[in-house]
Amino acid sequence: MNIERLKRQIRFLIEIDALKTIFRQSYHLDGLKKENAAEHCWHVAIMVLVLSEYADEAPDPLAVLKMLLVHDLVEIDAGDTFCYDEAGRTDQAEREARAAERIFALLPEDQAAEFHGLWRTYEARRTPEARFAAALDRLMPLLHNYYTQGKSWQEHGVMLDQVLDRNRHIGDGSRTLWDFVRALIDDAVAKGYLAQA
Amino acid sequence: MNIERLKRQIRFLIEIDALKTIFRQSYHLDGLKKENAAEHCWHVAIMVLVLSEYADEAPDPLAVLKMLLVHDLVEIDAGDTFCYDEAGRTDQAEREARAAERIFALLPEDQAAEFHGLWRTYEARRTPEARFAAALDRLMPLLHNYYTQGKSWQEHGVMLDQVLDRNRHIGDGSRTLWDFVRALIDDAVAKGYLAQA
Repeated sequence: MNIERLKRQIRFLIEIDALKTIFRQSYHLDGLKKENAAEHCWHVAIMVLVLSEYADEAPDPLAVLKMLLVHDLVEIDAGDTFCYDEAGRTDQAEREARAAERIFALLPEDQAAEFHGLWRTYEARRTPEARFAAALDRLMPLLHNYYTQGKSWQEHGVMLDQVLDRNRHIGDGSRTLWDFVRALIDDAVAKGYLAQA
Repeated sequence: MNIERLKRQIRFLIEIDALKTIFRQSYHLDGLKKENAAEHCWHVAIMVLVLSEYADEAPDPLAVLKMLLVHDLVEIDAGDTFCYDEAGRTDQAEREARAAERIFALLPEDQAAEFHGLWRTYEARRTPEARFAAALDRLMPLLHNYYTQGKSWQEHGVMLDQVLDRNRHIGDGSRTLWDFVRALIDDAVAKGYLAQA
């Protein structure tokens, strides 16, 4: 047993505890607090267990799970960029790439390469697994908004067109889930949770 | 597509948001707040990706991940039972079994059976996957205690013998990790984080 290897792995696991302090714009469903990125990663991971039957191209569930568990680690350094924050999005890729370099390098080299690969594959959305993972990652905040009567949309003045534009790629991972989301969005507009223009 | 099935699945995913409000006795590593059960589930799931090489019997990583993502859902109804709370532990099994009945039944029948099975398998610790999952579930709070100078141990007057007794089963999943933990505990005693008697 290589104790130096195990110590690096433990050091990494300690470092990523910080993801629990990175807050997102989505509210818990009781509407009382915003959720953090670690909670979010657990929630989307469990979605894989429940919703994989709706993926257009049957994905390898282990690969989807790994991507979703890892996909937000860069936010420890780069922070959470709200998906409707156009200014924040301009340098998001650069900030996150720098964060990935530092954080994954805490691991032993073979695992650093694996984690970096998972993150890049997720971001590129070129595999069935990455497309389905990205669809789940977008679906969850829509549900959070709908079931808190549009709390975060309204707080940020987010409009229907923006919601459609930012979430359309759900349909690249699952046409069924995108159809479901379209109906949910229509209903959110009808109920006044989401403004039309 | 069976819309009633999808609605049940969404209903379940909404219900389990409540795991983010179930607080544990472990502190975040910045020592400022106690962590919740959803954050914990994410953290132990990512341990599977990093530490599986130390399992005594090579486990199926997908099975370990599923168990760890699901293992604390019963706490939504049953609350988190601190592992050193002898009184709380007397009716823990009964409370959690009731919770499992209600919560998993929100899912469509096939998935309810799968989730119930994952939870029971985890609790029974009779498979290599369950033993390794249980080892990781115990390892994380030990690290949290060690790296916060024994904050939660001291808050509850937890002693060395209790820590050894409650965590010994780490060795059933991984002798390597148990050896590591033994050294960590010795060091915690030496540094005054953990009282000996």
